[in-house]
Amino acid sequence: MRGVGRLIGVGVGPGDPDLLTIKAVRALEAADVVAHFAKAGNISHARTIATRFLRRGVIELPLLYPVTTEQPTAGPEYRTAIQEFFDEASAAVASHLDAGRTVAVLSEGDPLFFGSYMHLHVRLMKRYPTDVIPGVTGMSGCWSAAGLPIAQGDDVLTVLPGTLNEAELIRRFQQNDPTVIMKVGRNLAKVRRALIAAQRIGNATYVERGTMGNEQLMPLVEKPDDSAPYFAIVLVAGRTWHP
Amino acid sequence: MRGVGRLIGVGVGPGDPDLLTIKAVRALEAADVVAHFAKAGNISHARTIATRFLRRGVIELPLLYPVTTEQPTAGPEYRTAIQEFFDEASAAVASHLDAGRTVAVLSEGDPLFFGSYMHLHVRLMKRYPTDVIPGVTGMSGCWSAAGLPIAQGDDVLTVLPGTLNEAELIRRFQQNDPTVIMKVGRNLAKVRRALIAAQRIGNATYVERGTMGNEQLMPLVEKPDDSAPYFAIVLVAGRTWHP
Repeated sequence: MRGVGRLIGVGVGPGDPDLLTIKAVRALEAADVVAHFAKAGNISHARTIATRFLRRGVIELPLLYPVTTEQPTAGPEYRTAIQEFFDEASAAVASHLDAGRTVAVLSEGDPLFFGSYMHLHVRLMKRYPTDVIPGVTGMSGCWSAAGLPIAQGDDVLTVLPGTLNEAELIRRFQQNDPTVIMKVGRNLAKVRRALIAAQRIGNATYVERGTMGNEQLMPLVEKPDDSAPYFAIVLVAGRTWHP
Repeated sequence: MRGVGRLIGVGVGPGDPDLLTIKAVRALEAADVVAHFAKAGNISHARTIATRFLRRGVIELPLLYPVTTEQPTAGPEYRTAIQEFFDEASAAVASHLDAGRTVAVLSEGDPLFFGSYMHLHVRLMKRYPTDVIPGVTGMSGCWSAAGLPIAQGDDVLTVLPGTLNEAELIRRFQQNDPTVIMKVGRNLAKVRRALIAAQRIGNATYVERGTMGNEQLMPLVEKPDDSAPYFAIVLVAGRTWHP
């Protein structure tokens, strides 16, 4: 009789499939089941990145979010829906683990850094053996593509989501730390205003689809509009180094 | 006649050689010269991680720091010495690039995130073609080893060096963000006092040699002494999730 299977959170990195680690590739090649999160009707971005490493005949387990847009301030209904979704997703994963199958959960970037995998991890870690394979984060991919040294010496790096309110963005930007702004998407106009208010707009670099073939990279002041995909990132250097 | 060579910053990840990316491995296999930073008398940690990927007969270029301990507050003499060192290191790398050789510079973790590679990059990027291959950071390796979700949703992540003065550490900790404390080493007693003052000691996890075979991992309150290697990290969760 087989024991229970192992749960593995697998970071697949920022977009370029060559940025998977050796360990991630081996885990995907050995997994019985590969799970991935996506919005209903979409293909998981992590799944697209990892395509070439999936074993022929591997069982795939898509985990489809019940909500289609990220809420800037999550209300109680959203919270309840998303908690139920993660409960159900955990149950679906657990049924494979109970059957003795190893389940690899694909995570864009790094699994425990703003990733959905963590919600399975905290629900299942006490019942099953788990491994987390760290990955290259989207922000590392972006500052590397920009050739922008992000932090050195005694710098404090702040990583914040563009979903914060404008006053809080300004307060954070005024600390003059090197700063990474995630989840730029629909928040770009607000992020831009806050950077102007904090007098840091001149140090800001806009990066879209970093490390992917079609990456866009420019000083934020040269970006002519405020339209940006959800995963766009703005990098704000703390010093005068520029790409 | 060959043109000038290419400068490549290669992130080798947090310690486990299986955490190199496919792209990093290919770059090391193709490089004419592999450069690595170390203290005089020591072997570069990045060099140790990457050993198995170095081509037989590759030219190695050790770049040896003139100073043996990191200063908490760098005085002008230290600054001058270190600037001169990076100027000389850049010249040594440039002589290979001028001869048409590709030079891969090993960087523990990610090259542009608190890494020495950046000092070569800013000196050479205008004269030579450059690539930066992002790597898994030490902090990702540590929170993955701990199984600790570090940031989610609208969290703000703060990454700071333990070299900051105690008042500044307390001020930062009181913001209640999930926090990563780098360069713990000789600063552990101060970091511990500041975490107690900010009432966050109960959420702190100590990680030493994360992802390496001999990793040490414990709640900071259970660590009996204040002795820690330079690369030890303390993770402070923003919420009540614990490993």
